[in-house]
Amino acid sequence: MRILSTVPQEDGYTMPAEFSKHYGCIMIFPHRRDSWQNGAYAARKAFAQVIDIISRSEKVIVCARYDDYDSARSMLGDNVRVIEMESDDSWARDVAPTFVSSGKDIRGIDWGFNAWGGLYDGLYFPWDKDNKMARKLCDMLDKDTYNKRSFILEGGSIHTDGEGTILTTEACLLSKGRNPHMSKEEIENELKRYLGGEKVIWLKSGIYNDETNEHVDNICAFTSPGEVALAWTDDKSDPQYKMSQSCLEILENSTDAKGRKLRVHKLPLPKPVTITAEECDGLDDMNGEPTRTPGERLAASYVNFYISNAHVIVPQFGDENDGKALEILRPLFPTKEVVGVYARDILIGGGNIHCITQQIPYFEN
Amino acid sequence: MRILSTVPQEDGYTMPAEFSKHYGCIMIFPHRRDSWQNGAYAARKAFAQVIDIISRSEKVIVCARYDDYDSARSMLGDNVRVIEMESDDSWARDVAPTFVSSGKDIRGIDWGFNAWGGLYDGLYFPWDKDNKMARKLCDMLDKDTYNKRSFILEGGSIHTDGEGTILTTEACLLSKGRNPHMSKEEIENELKRYLGGEKVIWLKSGIYNDETNEHVDNICAFTSPGEVALAWTDDKSDPQYKMSQSCLEILENSTDAKGRKLRVHKLPLPKPVTITAEECDGLDDMNGEPTRTPGERLAASYVNFYISNAHVIVPQFGDENDGKALEILRPLFPTKEVVGVYARDILIGGGNIHCITQQIPYFEN
Repeated sequence: MRILSTVPQEDGYTMPAEFSKHYGCIMIFPHRRDSWQNGAYAARKAFAQVIDIISRSEKVIVCARYDDYDSARSMLGDNVRVIEMESDDSWARDVAPTFVSSGKDIRGIDWGFNAWGGLYDGLYFPWDKDNKMARKLCDMLDKDTYNKRSFILEGGSIHTDGEGTILTTEACLLSKGRNPHMSKEEIENELKRYLGGEKVIWLKSGIYNDETNEHVDNICAFTSPGEVALAWTDDKSDPQYKMSQSCLEILENSTDAKGRKLRVHKLPLPKPVTITAEECDGLDDMNGEPTRTPGERLAASYVNFYISNAHVIVPQFGDENDGKALEILRPLFPTKEVVGVYARDILIGGGNIHCITQQIPYFEN
Repeated sequence: MRILSTVPQEDGYTMPAEFSKHYGCIMIFPHRRDSWQNGAYAARKAFAQVIDIISRSEKVIVCARYDDYDSARSMLGDNVRVIEMESDDSWARDVAPTFVSSGKDIRGIDWGFNAWGGLYDGLYFPWDKDNKMARKLCDMLDKDTYNKRSFILEGGSIHTDGEGTILTTEACLLSKGRNPHMSKEEIENELKRYLGGEKVIWLKSGIYNDETNEHVDNICAFTSPGEVALAWTDDKSDPQYKMSQSCLEILENSTDAKGRKLRVHKLPLPKPVTITAEECDGLDDMNGEPTRTPGERLAASYVNFYISNAHVIVPQFGDENDGKALEILRPLFPTKEVVGVYARDILIGGGNIHCITQQIPYFEN
């Protein structure tokens, strides 16, 4: 593995869309007791369901801490690779490499990771194990890596259509806990140079109470070039209403890198999902303080789906909109099977199915 | 990766000779402060030299603990893969899988490992990290593994010619710290079933003061089918004299699995190599006791070489026989380059170049 200091776009490497063909998917076996209730027992079962579906059409590589290897190995299928790797938490989207492709080969971008805000408003300290994962994953895959640790970015804060358009949120990328010394224009430029984009569409905000500073992958995702799914509510009393409304206006008034007007598919949100006292009881404190309080609203959204080679795997919450979300997504992915996985036990950790996955694009060599 | 409970020979898998074509080689970045002087600093440099030579003709995979990854990565070449894996010490020969091949694909055997003797006369406790490596290495390589943890065996205690002949020592395999509940015949049978052999040649002993209970890979190695190199001394006052003499008699009176008489090439030993007080000072105690004492004789032998696709890498000790050993080996490997590496800093840990390597046979898929 070479550790590169060049720029992907200049090297002819760009980030493919998630709906392009994959080699596989990276995930992390959950373990953090202040993120996942009851020693991550329920989360592991939910992760295993997601892993099982993804592994039917692409190679899943699951990172497990030394202490968790045996548990992961016995819980997961023979077709899944479990590799030893220390981590602070389990959000592969944000700590695994963002892969860029030349069309034939791939390389991984090793962004800086600071637990969604570092000492300003990050969610845990320290985060060094997470920050070191991207490079090690490239090494394990025998693929070169771009060293971009000087720039703080999580994979969940960006989406691309693979045709030059990048989607992100100001709430996250311009937050003080990321790259506060850089202007919006400078940040946009880095996104273009590293992901190979020509146009960045900036949404203002994401999902209400999303502790990632409102990652785009919880509010809006490309379903194909020129088409996006947007998390939506018609309830004007919900603080999410104005946030989604603002996104819709921006999207409807934007054209993508190819000059197309975007087609927006509204995905209704579930009714507010709040954590129970019993669930909070199952969480360890962090530095003597609880990480969640009973009644706290979690950032539930159907947009947080993962697109594998054969499936679209969509979070379900036991809500009346669960089925509706699947029905809306089905015609948008005519060649894939749209399936739901009950994901409350993932959501308790703060994110969802998209957040716990990171696709590895297909490569020839 | 499937964890198999079947038997390689019955599945059509046998262990190829080390001089057959390799896919690559597994090694472990040294770290143990009671095995390697000065925080393993000198050993790392010696390992890196070996890795560099091997990596010119095959893929080297180096296991590094979480804490050592960055050091390993910066010390080793771009063409070397560094993967995170915890270990108790750094003897890949004894803790990495023994690979068997069908001719097209390979599988790894996961023997039980107990630090060369367990609670009877093992060299450290605990040894659980080492014992877990073989399975994880198969998982990382995406190759099926045979679960044979119920049988204690180290890779350094066996050699094969790839044509049905297995070489081992009674001193090691019949020692009370290995499989004392099994008879010699039962042990021989397991070797044949797992390595795919038809004949086991039992040497009585290995190298004097070899703390592995005298592994065969320090005293005798196949250089081609029907030919072996044997560590030798003409000094009758050396306790090694009778040990090597006994091996020679057995080898000269044996035929291999194909019925050939063995041709024995004597490799002279260096003069006794003893550890200095200064070197001992650089070693941490283990449980409050020193691991070596000044003047202790180390198990130095030129037979502890590694055969890569392009090289034979031979330990050197700054002894007048260093060059002679290379000269004797050169005509035995006409298609390879025979090179020496100064290996005192590896020897201090107890073994040598062969002990720190484990070949991965070539495979098609």
